[in-house]
Amino acid sequence: MTVELICVGTELLLGNIVNTNAAFISEKCAMLGLSMYYQSVVGDNPGRLEHLLHMAKERSDVIILSGGLGPTQDDLTKEIAARVMDKSLVEDSKVRKAIQEFMTKRGNTITENNWKQALVPEDCIVLHNSNGTAPGIIMEDEDTRIILLPGPPNELIPMFEEQVYSYLHNLQPEIICSKMVKLCGIGESAAETKILDLINTQKNPTVAPYAKTGEVHLRITAKAANEKDAFTMIAPMEEELKRRFGNLIYTDDPQVTLEMVVAKLLKKYHFTVTTAESCTGGLLAARLVNVSGISENFKEGYITYSNDAKEKLLGVSHETLKTYGAVSSQTAAEMAEGGAKAAKADICVSITGIAGPEGGTEEKPVGLVYIGCYCKGKVYTKKNLYTGNRSKIREYSVATALTLLRKAILNEVNERNEKTTRNLNKMNK
Amino acid sequence: MTVELICVGTELLLGNIVNTNAAFISEKCAMLGLSMYYQSVVGDNPGRLEHLLHMAKERSDVIILSGGLGPTQDDLTKEIAARVMDKSLVEDSKVRKAIQEFMTKRGNTITENNWKQALVPEDCIVLHNSNGTAPGIIMEDEDTRIILLPGPPNELIPMFEEQVYSYLHNLQPEIICSKMVKLCGIGESAAETKILDLINTQKNPTVAPYAKTGEVHLRITAKAANEKDAFTMIAPMEEELKRRFGNLIYTDDPQVTLEMVVAKLLKKYHFTVTTAESCTGGLLAARLVNVSGISENFKEGYITYSNDAKEKLLGVSHETLKTYGAVSSQTAAEMAEGGAKAAKADICVSITGIAGPEGGTEEKPVGLVYIGCYCKGKVYTKKNLYTGNRSKIREYSVATALTLLRKAILNEVNERNEKTTRNLNKMNK
Repeated sequence: MTVELICVGTELLLGNIVNTNAAFISEKCAMLGLSMYYQSVVGDNPGRLEHLLHMAKERSDVIILSGGLGPTQDDLTKEIAARVMDKSLVEDSKVRKAIQEFMTKRGNTITENNWKQALVPEDCIVLHNSNGTAPGIIMEDEDTRIILLPGPPNELIPMFEEQVYSYLHNLQPEIICSKMVKLCGIGESAAETKILDLINTQKNPTVAPYAKTGEVHLRITAKAANEKDAFTMIAPMEEELKRRFGNLIYTDDPQVTLEMVVAKLLKKYHFTVTTAESCTGGLLAARLVNVSGISENFKEGYITYSNDAKEKLLGVSHETLKTYGAVSSQTAAEMAEGGAKAAKADICVSITGIAGPEGGTEEKPVGLVYIGCYCKGKVYTKKNLYTGNRSKIREYSVATALTLLRKAILNEVNERNEKTTRNLNKMNK
Repeated sequence: MTVELICVGTELLLGNIVNTNAAFISEKCAMLGLSMYYQSVVGDNPGRLEHLLHMAKERSDVIILSGGLGPTQDDLTKEIAARVMDKSLVEDSKVRKAIQEFMTKRGNTITENNWKQALVPEDCIVLHNSNGTAPGIIMEDEDTRIILLPGPPNELIPMFEEQVYSYLHNLQPEIICSKMVKLCGIGESAAETKILDLINTQKNPTVAPYAKTGEVHLRITAKAANEKDAFTMIAPMEEELKRRFGNLIYTDDPQVTLEMVVAKLLKKYHFTVTTAESCTGGLLAARLVNVSGISENFKEGYITYSNDAKEKLLGVSHETLKTYGAVSSQTAAEMAEGGAKAAKADICVSITGIAGPEGGTEEKPVGLVYIGCYCKGKVYTKKNLYTGNRSKIREYSVATALTLLRKAILNEVNERNEKTTRNLNKMNK
């Protein structure tokens, strides 16, 4: 079954707003197993909208329209869609009452043009709008279904989730479910190489890699009669990915971010962490503080942009800075060690590099970034050479720093566990 | 002149990514006075793309395509657009060399399919891609111009700004020029109220406010035969805005950000600055470090998430924290004073607040944020109550902090100038 999306709004054509509705609706349709081949945006122009709707009716089974359901003269989506479907408009008393209640509750005055929103095509399904005055509408004929949704995301999203999703679900005998597995510490092509055999032979379920800044996400997708069957098909593929990527997988929950995983590890093992940042100037700390409730584990951080600050706040030796320079493995290591000491923290992550556009040399080009991590007596460092602009280089640095931080914690816990096992074995001898 | 946008990418149809390119290109075209009536999204499907391109060629003067210029078999935008324009593909040696250099610099291996990207339609204009391997392309025939751009925003945006914008500008007989005046320290409705008389009577030029996080941008737009005439029309309106808003205007350059203005002031007056952040956890410092070359003025910053860190690093008194709490005007002031002292800086900006979603109380709700600024002996504080989620509250806090920092510097300089004038007057008496 094919679905087509038409977003109506001059503000989209002028670039005043980003079309987040399109991404939302597309993702839901993909989950439902509906094939979307076309998305369009048109302005509040009756001729062009009508022409496009006729074309869409020829080529698609379901047409979803968003926007143009407001009370003003410009808002014509409903009128034109009704004409294309050959339906006349009639007033719906329930909708009229809902508009009245909505406006009264908000203390707004009802103007005459508001009642335009109480008109609906004959024989349609009316979708209640709990966040606005424009009702959603579903019209059906032998070939086509047209679904009209209000444009504001805070009205469209709940209406879709609560009413449209189940309607579309009933049309589809087969649904598509997917699961996301998120990796850090591996590049996209390396990740793809590791699963090329799976990709090349896949049918149902399928797996596909997506590159993110410093991360790779793998999406497993299965088509089945119902959700339970789909996830039963996904499970062995997920197991296989876990077997192949092991600890590189940091979560299988789409809502969970890398900093959330790190925060959870810190909390679980009662580790405190601090940060010592040069070129990222606080971005790493800011990502950790993204996680609400991290205050027990992250109490303070240092931004040491100058060499003096690296010496004063982190105790990096003057000798090291002179001999190897601020952007060096040695400095990154001393920043991490010194930061942990200054903050009396178990762990410290350090970043020092050249984010550009100025400051690069042949020997130390723009994009060269050293990441350090001190963790309970051990020091790790990683040399990186990133491409991109200043802000991209800084984003990559932060992602790599979080990855190294996670790795250091996992190593520490692992060694601790091995030691316990050895001691237990000794005792049992 | 009409322009039409076609974005190619299955990931858009699946809702994996939001189509920010469409908003970016639409906004630029609107600025150029080009009329956009259609935007479409199609997948990597040759038949549908070709059909759509033929249709677009019938109805639009300029067609901009983004995406589908990659090295794989799926990427077919260039091949199909060339066919529609009746051009054959030939290898461009300059592009081949650029690909070679780009890949070598990143240490990537060049595979055979990379060379596909060196093929360009005969007689086309090649747009250099400094951030990727896919060149942009402009094809022309008697009726139509087709512009092909790479899909990734970090490649598309600079290519558009540096090469496509001026090309489109040259096509337009009547152009639309606009100038942006950026304000901080005033809300959107307050700003609008101050210019309501101008808005209500405007024809050409026009002025319109745009709300940004913690800022308001006013865009003056004029339509004229050429750039010189347009800017002559814009000038008196700009003067009027400057008269009405005075120091609230921080720049009239669209490329200049608030942190760049602050950095320039710091540099000009040889002031050093430091930061003392709680709930923003480094975001303020990170925005300052966005400005390349700020190292002379910003040497170090403190992230003091816990009360202990506020006492230890900034010398906030235990008494103050106990009596007024961490989120208070008193703590913000002591953080600012203490931060300046610790860093031996002329100025220190502090932020302490409740970003949520947890941690709010009736007395101190989520969104309550105190900003402090110590500047050469004076201490300013500002109480704020923001709405929105955690990340929005933090963004607003940083914008307000930069605004307060700018105000403190301007005050300081102003007083200094007044003193000099007084002394000069005395001497002259």
